[in-house]
Amino acid sequence: MGKNRLEAFSDGVLAIIITIMVLELKVPHGEHSEDLMPLVPTFLSYVLSFIYVGIYWNNHHNLLHATHRVSGGILWANLHLLFWLSLFPFATGWMGENHFAPLPTAVYGGVLLMAAIAYWMLQQLIVATEGEQSALRHALGADWKGKVSPLLYGLSIIASFWSHWMAQGIYVLVALLWLVPDRRLERAVRQEGV
Amino acid sequence: MGKNRLEAFSDGVLAIIITIMVLELKVPHGEHSEDLMPLVPTFLSYVLSFIYVGIYWNNHHNLLHATHRVSGGILWANLHLLFWLSLFPFATGWMGENHFAPLPTAVYGGVLLMAAIAYWMLQQLIVATEGEQSALRHALGADWKGKVSPLLYGLSIIASFWSHWMAQGIYVLVALLWLVPDRRLERAVRQEGV
Amino acid sequence: MGKNRLEAFSDGVLAIIITIMVLELKVPHGEHSEDLMPLVPTFLSYVLSFIYVGIYWNNHHNLLHATHRVSGGILWANLHLLFWLSLFPFATGWMGENHFAPLPTAVYGGVLLMAAIAYWMLQQLIVATEGEQSALRHALGADWKGKVSPLLYGLSIIASFWSHWMAQGIYVLVALLWLVPDRRLERAVRQEGV
Amino acid sequence: MGKNRLEAFSDGVLAIIITIMVLELKVPHGEHSEDLMPLVPTFLSYVLSFIYVGIYWNNHHNLLHATHRVSGGILWANLHLLFWLSLFPFATGWMGENHFAPLPTAVYGGVLLMAAIAYWMLQQLIVATEGEQSALRHALGADWKGKVSPLLYGLSIIASFWSHWMAQGIYVLVALLWLVPDRRLERAVRQEGV
Repeated sequence: MGKNRLEAFSDGVLAIIITIMVLELKVPHGEHSEDLMPLVPTFLSYVLSFIYVGIYWNNHHNLLHATHRVSGGILWANLHLLFWLSLFPFATGWMGENHFAPLPTAVYGGVLLMAAIAYWMLQQLIVATEGEQSALRHALGADWKGKVSPLLYGLSIIASFWSHWMAQGIYVLVALLWLVPDRRLERAVRQEGV
Repeated sequence: MGKNRLEAFSDGVLAIIITIMVLELKVPHGEHSEDLMPLVPTFLSYVLSFIYVGIYWNNHHNLLHATHRVSGGILWANLHLLFWLSLFPFATGWMGENHFAPLPTAVYGGVLLMAAIAYWMLQQLIVATEGEQSALRHALGADWKGKVSPLLYGLSIIASFWSHWMAQGIYVLVALLWLVPDRRLERAVRQEGV
Repeated sequence: MGKNRLEAFSDGVLAIIITIMVLELKVPHGEHSEDLMPLVPTFLSYVLSFIYVGIYWNNHHNLLHATHRVSGGILWANLHLLFWLSLFPFATGWMGENHFAPLPTAVYGGVLLMAAIAYWMLQQLIVATEGEQSALRHALGADWKGKVSPLLYGLSIIASFWSHWMAQGIYVLVALLWLVPDRRLERAVRQEGV
Repeated sequence: MGKNRLEAFSDGVLAIIITIMVLELKVPHGEHSEDLMPLVPTFLSYVLSFIYVGIYWNNHHNLLHATHRVSGGILWANLHLLFWLSLFPFATGWMGENHFAPLPTAVYGGVLLMAAIAYWMLQQLIVATEGEQSALRHALGADWKGKVSPLLYGLSIIASFWSHWMAQGIYVLVALLWLVPDRRLERAVRQEGV
């Protein structure tokens, strides 16, 4: 009930987030390569965030595909997730403009951490609604990626002030972890033959 | 007739409003915590407005779910609501940038008030189209939240010039009132078994 | 064939146009009423353009509702219409910021004129595809509004340099003409019982 | 499976890209024609990019219409395409603001080239999923446009540093090539009678 509109609204917000992030890549005034160079860190942070939003869209897509009932609580848990994702353009822009300096790197990690927690809460709520015997519950299994990611984000926040390049390395690593498609949910969807 | 496209268009506008509000959170030039501090009021006003747009999306979702006929009048009442909601980014940004000063606080209340009136007009029009015996009409009942909110907004506009913190308190209070899910409409939808 | 995606894409573009127009309403730096005053012309031009985009969305909605076949030509005629509508935020912002000065007023009229011509071309193409005996063709009838509007826009472009308030008056007048719902197409849709 | 949501998300991103490009057309401060003149190159580059995004939307529409299965790989190939298209506003704005200077012209060509490669990869993946005997495979035929376009973009990138007007001429030429509707896919769709 209302699942389609929830998907449509989430897709709309995610599409806007992924696109307005590029507005932080400000058009430089000069026409030479030295005018373009200062934008390289902003471009790299844009690439990283684009992949992260893509991962969230992908996982969200699979999660909602395996969802059959949408309650008021799920609507708000979804909005809570979208709230933290909406801070990606800000965190990305700040990190890029300051060439991956410690504090912006830590703040970026904080936004990643909160988004991961919000996703986990949404997932828990949906699992609780679907039931312990649901195909979704079985498909998630131990959900080690979902458990390890927040730990790694937490680690990288601390690492930011010690070695911000190590923190960046962790962000890239977690993105790679998730880029491997989440076969669990795809399998659940296939088993049901929805 | 045309209800789906009305929902899709409204969702699109609401998704954009909720996302471009974050653009008022301008990326600071420095990389230190003292560069981030001046953004705290803007961030807080963003959180408040995000919740308000979320509430409107949620209620709008339930209201249209219980709607069966869409007339030209309903289309325009809906656009009228979207107009006032489209002023949220401006009002939010102005209030945040000026640290909740009296006039911006009052203007923010004015936008909330006009949006509440526009929502009420849309609801009245839909109820009139659905008929006095409709499930929607019964579900709305006395609609005390819909009646109390504009009064509280009006009160807080006046309070802004006397104590702008009291006005902010009222805005938070009304948001909390609505965060409690609108069981009436959910019930109506369930009764019909749509 | 593909009509739904054409509607969805057009709705997306129109939703974004109507919402980013409000970004021209720049948040002022001061917190007093004298900081808000210079924004009044921009606000008024925003209201006018919001109504115009609303009218286009409404008419586009009815036109496509009565459409059964979508050809490649119709896709491009639709994109051509969206192109001119996408210039609304620019024209609106320029006219507002310059307090309805002659040239910005004329340019605004030029964008309105081109959008009207693009809409007329789209309508002609759809009518040609639907056939002379279609419900749509009968419903449009003499289409006096569609014929008079471009003439009035042309008149107001000329009038801009002589009396820009008269030009503004014509813009408001045409908007009012269209605000009266387009009963012809609603009737056509109803007759078919789609 | 999930094709509708893939289309909806892509449409959302394309709608936003095509619309935020116009934000590079900054509202000038003066009200006279000499204030408008410097915007002519930006306007022309906007027109070119609008047509390119329109072509991508059109082709993407036809390609997905002929697609029956969506895998995780296709989702990511689609996001990869959207990534390069999301750089259109930046490349367009930089080229326009610098009056088609050599380096911005070459960078614009680079974004066109990468988008063309990403589209080709998406198409290959869909063809591989659909199978060699699919209607889509037959419809694509030799796909000479898809093969010639990247070559022409590569040529124009080199030409940029020698004669940037020649490079612009190639961009316009390729756009014209694609503006001729892609009858192959339309035919495939028609043959299947989907």
